[in-house]
Amino acid sequence: VQETIEKTALKIFGKDIKIKGCGRTDSKVHGICYVANFKIETDLKEEEIKEAFNSNLPFSIRIKKVEFERDNFHSRYSAKSKVYRYLITEFPSPFLEGYAYYLKGKLDIEKMKIASRYIVGKHDFTSFCASGSSVENKVREVKRIEIKKERFTLDPEIKILVIEIEADGFLYKMARNIVGTLVDVGRGKIAPEEVRKIIEARNRKIAPPTLPPYGLYLKEVKY
Amino acid sequence: VQETIEKTALKIFGKDIKIKGCGRTDSKVHGICYVANFKIETDLKEEEIKEAFNSNLPFSIRIKKVEFERDNFHSRYSAKSKVYRYLITEFPSPFLEGYAYYLKGKLDIEKMKIASRYIVGKHDFTSFCASGSSVENKVREVKRIEIKKERFTLDPEIKILVIEIEADGFLYKMARNIVGTLVDVGRGKIAPEEVRKIIEARNRKIAPPTLPPYGLYLKEVKY
Repeated sequence: VQETIEKTALKIFGKDIKIKGCGRTDSKVHGICYVANFKIETDLKEEEIKEAFNSNLPFSIRIKKVEFERDNFHSRYSAKSKVYRYLITEFPSPFLEGYAYYLKGKLDIEKMKIASRYIVGKHDFTSFCASGSSVENKVREVKRIEIKKERFTLDPEIKILVIEIEADGFLYKMARNIVGTLVDVGRGKIAPEEVRKIIEARNRKIAPPTLPPYGLYLKEVKY
Repeated sequence: VQETIEKTALKIFGKDIKIKGCGRTDSKVHGICYVANFKIETDLKEEEIKEAFNSNLPFSIRIKKVEFERDNFHSRYSAKSKVYRYLITEFPSPFLEGYAYYLKGKLDIEKMKIASRYIVGKHDFTSFCASGSSVENKVREVKRIEIKKERFTLDPEIKILVIEIEADGFLYKMARNIVGTLVDVGRGKIAPEEVRKIIEARNRKIAPPTLPPYGLYLKEVKY
């Protein structure tokens, strides 16, 4: 995606442009609101730049918004928080293949909500960070976890469980690891109170497994 | 789809089975709640039959529900009404390619609602029936038209205009023709009051063009 956008930028502005993204995203994670920035001197207006990109990019990449920013803006380092959404479907709809995680059986939403309260706050999230990450400081602040059901627009008979997580930063695979733990609580595999012990253990091996990437959406980057 | 389901039924019951569908559906229209019936003597329970189909069908076809019915039930002729949904997106999201009709520019929803009131009721719908249809009686009762905006589950930043139409029966391409007319009202091409004249004219050539099939969903068949 980055390379394609840079090639298109070269076409539009006639200059080599290096875009800076708001963070790594695993393959198959949906970057519905991915933010990137680059520096350019131009007479074009924001809306014109957007149109120029969208008429030159392949249809699978769409620019939603172009905004001029202050000189020292960085899509990654200026971010105050990020919001991820994870989608779980109770019915294996062909529409949702690659777009939501299919889980057979009911989840106890109330227990998942109780468990989520242990996660919200400033903690060392080593237990939810994929092993092999080179990041040293694993303290992050989870600002909010929301668990709700939404009807699927393309088939309103299908209810989708949406887990929204906002944090000032996410460690590698942290969002999918948090959801994996919440799901194990919902299934009754672990008690909500155990989540506190999992966090305190600061040990990835103690926490439940990660969930697949295709259920995850980067919903918003806040500045 | 019909052939695939019949082959699977043969596999499950060891008998040649002919399924009867609830009506023709154009290619690319999404039959999210398509109903079909067949006759079989079996000891299997409803849930077991469903599981047997779903584990033998290709993933693109899913059975949502199996129900035993009275002997003279016919998925098409016993239907009291059908509900179709048409989805229009204001943003050309790659997620929605083939799943919603992309329309540039704003639509005047209030005017569309006024126009819809002329369509609701028992009318001769010749103006909304594709020419070439062999049906003689073109009187149908449109019971309800609902026009509302919904957030798209896979990208809640995108709002989708949903037009839901319930009728005791639909003529060929009638749902897509009704929506085509409502959209022309929303764009300001025709006034809401003109819709009454269009219906009264009983002439397909007078009404605005039909919309593409991939925006249309058979949402429910009521018995």
